Amino acid sequence: MFSTPAPVPTPEHHLSAIDELRALLGDRLSTSASVRERYGKDESFHDSMPPDAVATVASTEEVAEVVTICAKYKCPVIPYGTGTALEGHVAALHGGVCINMMEMNEIVQVNVEDLDCVVQPGVTRKQLNEHLRDTGLFFPIDPGADASIGGMVATRASGTNAVRYGTMRENVLSLTVVMADGRIIKTSRRARKSSAGYDLTRLFVGSEGTLGVITEITLRLYGIPECITSAIANFPDVESAVNTVILTIQSGIPVARMELVDEASMEAINNYSKLDMPVRTTLWLEFHGSESGAKENAESLQMIAGEFGGEDFSWTSNMEERNKLWQARHDAAYACKAMRPNGTIWATDVCVPISRLAECISQTQADIREADVIAPIVGHVGDGNFHLTLLVDHDDPEEVARANNIHERMVNRALAMEGTCTGEHGIGYGKLDFLVAEHGEAVSVMRMIKNSLDPDNIMNPGKILRA
Amino acid sequence: MFSTPAPVPTPEHHLSAIDELRALLGDRLSTSASVRERYGKDESFHDSMPPDAVATVASTEEVAEVVTICAKYKCPVIPYGTGTALEGHVAALHGGVCINMMEMNEIVQVNVEDLDCVVQPGVTRKQLNEHLRDTGLFFPIDPGADASIGGMVATRASGTNAVRYGTMRENVLSLTVVMADGRIIKTSRRARKSSAGYDLTRLFVGSEGTLGVITEITLRLYGIPECITSAIANFPDVESAVNTVILTIQSGIPVARMELVDEASMEAINNYSKLDMPVRTTLWLEFHGSESGAKENAESLQMIAGEFGGEDFSWTSNMEERNKLWQARHDAAYACKAMRPNGTIWATDVCVPISRLAECISQTQADIREADVIAPIVGHVGDGNFHLTLLVDHDDPEEVARANNIHERMVNRALAMEGTCTGEHGIGYGKLDFLVAEHGEAVSVMRMIKNSLDPDNIMNPGKILRA
Repeated sequence: MFSTPAPVPTPEHHLSAIDELRALLGDRLSTSASVRERYGKDESFHDSMPPDAVATVASTEEVAEVVTICAKYKCPVIPYGTGTALEGHVAALHGGVCINMMEMNEIVQVNVEDLDCVVQPGVTRKQLNEHLRDTGLFFPIDPGADASIGGMVATRASGTNAVRYGTMRENVLSLTVVMADGRIIKTSRRARKSSAGYDLTRLFVGSEGTLGVITEITLRLYGIPECITSAIANFPDVESAVNTVILTIQSGIPVARMELVDEASMEAINNYSKLDMPVRTTLWLEFHGSESGAKENAESLQMIAGEFGGEDFSWTSNMEERNKLWQARHDAAYACKAMRPNGTIWATDVCVPISRLAECISQTQADIREADVIAPIVGHVGDGNFHLTLLVDHDDPEEVARANNIHERMVNRALAMEGTCTGEHGIGYGKLDFLVAEHGEAVSVMRMIKNSLDPDNIMNPGKILRA
Repeated sequence: MFSTPAPVPTPEHHLSAIDELRALLGDRLSTSASVRERYGKDESFHDSMPPDAVATVASTEEVAEVVTICAKYKCPVIPYGTGTALEGHVAALHGGVCINMMEMNEIVQVNVEDLDCVVQPGVTRKQLNEHLRDTGLFFPIDPGADASIGGMVATRASGTNAVRYGTMRENVLSLTVVMADGRIIKTSRRARKSSAGYDLTRLFVGSEGTLGVITEITLRLYGIPECITSAIANFPDVESAVNTVILTIQSGIPVARMELVDEASMEAINNYSKLDMPVRTTLWLEFHGSESGAKENAESLQMIAGEFGGEDFSWTSNMEERNKLWQARHDAAYACKAMRPNGTIWATDVCVPISRLAECISQTQADIREADVIAPIVGHVGDGNFHLTLLVDHDDPEEVARANNIHERMVNRALAMEGTCTGEHGIGYGKLDFLVAEHGEAVSVMRMIKNSLDPDNIMNPGKILRA
């Protein structure tokens, strides 16, 4: 299935780069085996592919110096945040220098009147929201992990709030980027919108470190809603839950979160988060607005859910209860992992037009049952996006083959339904072939852009596009 | 100020392209002087720069054939929609073939459950909304003109609803594009979100025909709100109106439209649209939601406006009254033109962080008073975007110089305030120098992309980037 190249000894020209980098960074350049091992691995099952060295940087200018040195020796550069990627994004497939961005973790500006902020890439989403708390503002994008903002930009991350607030695509106003030749650019101004030239901001959002290193980010922020109401409802099957979601969106009810949790996931979550919820197909919802608005929306949704057989509709505005609920949702991947301690998580996602979502999930569940594999499903169903968490013993090739079959069938099914091979995880090197299946001729345009901006292919080579 | 190159006679190699195109298209290729004149001009004051020929096309495949022929002879290609651009976007600065897209005006698919549709580029925004009426869905982006969707994609257009629904940037799901070598690509799938590879969709949104010809567009749609309420309030000055806007957005009140209309514009609108509104600094607002929600939002806004001296707050849910109001707003540019029948409209826009908006508008108004020029201002203030409509007698060089001075000072002021030289009109060839002032080194990255995708510079040459 995945062919991980064997680690190669550090080539001569990389050693030259490392010598120069040591002169620049001193102790902040490490070549220790344990450090390299750690920085060659993300949260996925993909093996560690250690870089030749790890450089810890402190500023945009320093990143530019590091990249300039690496460019001189054609030595690969791989930016690293929290290491919570899921498709082998940080694996040093061709060796080179990992740039640890996590000490660039300053919140540079918060512009309350403009509802925006400027942060360094090592700031995590929780750190940012802690910092914002007294301003009445918040940043809504919330992947499961407490990821770095830089990593979230690089993978075009989203999470449970995307149905209301969009993904990183919609919420990055501007980026500072170090290009492959060491040049520093700023992709945009702080204005909310612009028609001035090519949308370089969006080109770097989701580029997975393959076009440049992101060193500063301007983000949109939002006012914390006056009232937040969370709700849960149970459904007889996936189809009725998805139909509820479709009619809710069509009706223009401004739902902030709409999460589907299947029976297997409910069981895992109950066990892990010490909850006692019914083990059924469930929608987890949230409404943001004024007190009466949130209440009205919750009631409208309850009525729609009722039409499709939804029941046990319960809702709360209590902050503690809400937090408990959503922490459990964010911990779903860990909850799944706990179901099979000797298994490795293979977390993957697809996204389809919502009219095909129920079919896509149900057929995938049928595959899971037939293959006798543990693979809970949760989904950001308002976006048509769902996650499959395969729990696999990677030492058992036969089981890996069965898991691989489910995975391949699911992605190809999503593509056949006009969907995408990944809604929010990215390509890394785990989904290279699916990118080609999805985009066809457009991949050649991506490659033209890559070649023009990084002619020596030093920026995270082998990710998104095969090296 | 603007140096429009003198029209050149059709060069030999363009004639060869035209011969081949005539064989392909027959009557649908025109070289008549009047047709060429018309297709060389948009709604701006920029003179007509006629193309060598106008090709009317019927399908993506035909566009690919036209571009392939033009590429063979290195003959420029300029796509043309409704001709309502404002920065000389369609001027054939280097001759070549104008592709008239307006007969590709089919609505290909409406996917009601998925809230999306697929349209050809010649469909106009009003045509689309007419078509959608019975589905309960609508497409919110509304530049002043009844522009073609293809043109709106190409200029990254927006309008009065952007504060709630975003711009074309946020509302295009996928594009079919004919590249400079005649290749056809599809930039994305129909899924709501994706992390699969570079965001080619956003690269083409706002590319003004310089990277490829857009031949099919998948758009997001929205449910028509249960209740729409429009409101008007008067303010003592721009600052109090803008402060009302800032606090409204911070409070998370979901306003759908927030338009500032200054005294000069109010006078023009009263005259043109036969209305009798107070000639004061005015906010025009709209709320979308449930009946009680829209009412509650309007009331919250009224309270906030009151804090800043806003008065004469009047609101209506009556459809006829609402339509009259917003038609008057959309006709504002024509209303301005009517104020000075012998003048030419010079419509320009900038966008700044909203905290700087009042200052930017007030200083611009002071310049206008001092220069004794007629130049009403309207603004999509929720986004920090405003429009200046200079009414200039272009045969009076001294007056043109005064207008030019106001314009230059306004754009540079916006740039100094971390703003952009255009919020929604685009660069065309009218703002080439401002693009460089705004983006600096990043322009070289835009040029690398342009060179890689269009090495012979045949796609709308001289727009966005100097040829």
